[in-house]
Amino acid sequence: MTGTLHGVGVGPGDPELMTLRAVRTIAAADVIAFIGADGRASRACATAATVIPDAAEQLGFDMPMRADPGAGQAVYDTAADRIAARLDAGRDVAFLCEGDPLLYGSFIYLMERLQDRFPVEIVPGLPSFAACAAALRLPLARRTDSFGIVPGTLSDADLRQRIEALQSMAVIKVGRHRARLSRVLDDLDLLDRAMVVQEVSHPAQQIQPLRGITGDLPYFATVMISKEDPA
Amino acid sequence: MTGTLHGVGVGPGDPELMTLRAVRTIAAADVIAFIGADGRASRACATAATVIPDAAEQLGFDMPMRADPGAGQAVYDTAADRIAARLDAGRDVAFLCEGDPLLYGSFIYLMERLQDRFPVEIVPGLPSFAACAAALRLPLARRTDSFGIVPGTLSDADLRQRIEALQSMAVIKVGRHRARLSRVLDDLDLLDRAMVVQEVSHPAQQIQPLRGITGDLPYFATVMISKEDPA
Repeated sequence: MTGTLHGVGVGPGDPELMTLRAVRTIAAADVIAFIGADGRASRACATAATVIPDAAEQLGFDMPMRADPGAGQAVYDTAADRIAARLDAGRDVAFLCEGDPLLYGSFIYLMERLQDRFPVEIVPGLPSFAACAAALRLPLARRTDSFGIVPGTLSDADLRQRIEALQSMAVIKVGRHRARLSRVLDDLDLLDRAMVVQEVSHPAQQIQPLRGITGDLPYFATVMISKEDPA
Repeated sequence: MTGTLHGVGVGPGDPELMTLRAVRTIAAADVIAFIGADGRASRACATAATVIPDAAEQLGFDMPMRADPGAGQAVYDTAADRIAARLDAGRDVAFLCEGDPLLYGSFIYLMERLQDRFPVEIVPGLPSFAACAAALRLPLARRTDSFGIVPGTLSDADLRQRIEALQSMAVIKVGRHRARLSRVLDDLDLLDRAMVVQEVSHPAQQIQPLRGITGDLPYFATVMISKEDPA
């Protein structure tokens, strides 16, 4: 009997925003796996810290943030091999993911490598945009509205197409594209509707209008925009 | 001291997909409020049943499913008045919502009516699309992809615009618009990528390709589409 690979979404950061199923799955795992960036501890791991069993093996992998795609793939290959060895030995592995495992998660690349050989179960997690909307008390969609998640790394034309098609959106991965995003939003007369939420649901959570910001945004910032007037 | 109005997302249906914060908030509430449709018990209430305290007052409202907008507004007015009376008496009210309170939730209309007079806290909940993706093991977004939620009630042209702008999407509220949606997807060469998930995370969960379906879809069905090949 091989073990099962569980992709576990732990939500946006506040340990209380884990689901009961995430807590149960982590508590029952033989191995807790995670990927940290640039030698930093995994944020998903910090969220789950209080429910990780003492007896579990912790299997961490480091992803260089500005890795070229080839180097990134090599990290996933290594991680998949080391996780496969545990699954082959009949041990259940919980791979921890911030937010939801299937929304921009590195779990996708591990699942691709392992799902033909091992049983895979996914525990969906609360996406960070839902916590951002809750913090802002911002209605995301009524009736026939469309909500979407848009990466700030897109070209101006692609950003514009998506922003025009949606009534509300969460723009992620803005970082050094902040000035460009502000310009596109200003052109569409939406800049004054854009709010930046940093470190959502963490003790360091900060909320501010995008209008006043001049530099880049930190990595863990989301820009929330709704074309409709607030409730 | 007035009470606090908590908009509590209980997720897609499986009680294990409630967050720890939802459980704690519901367990501490003096009043549990909810809206059912057409005289049926609220699904959110069924999800939370085991954590609703025996001592809590249960305050249910009935929303006729095909109500004209005026009748719907009257239900929200009545609900807001009755909830306000409890908040004025210093009692905390947890209003239960399927999925997330700010995504197509009736909580939005109660918040509009009450937030100027009472403290409002929102407990975000797992949106059903995340549970659908988990059930399908369908990656929703990688790198520069955009994911969105699209109501099937939109016009053909609006459906098309949104489907073209996104790499993956959850089409909700399809119901009697099923044939039209199938036709639009077929035109865009996406029909074979569309999967229908019914009653996601409930014991009655069912998954089937949209291609084979000929009639309408039931209300609690979501059509999941990704333009990318599966992992």
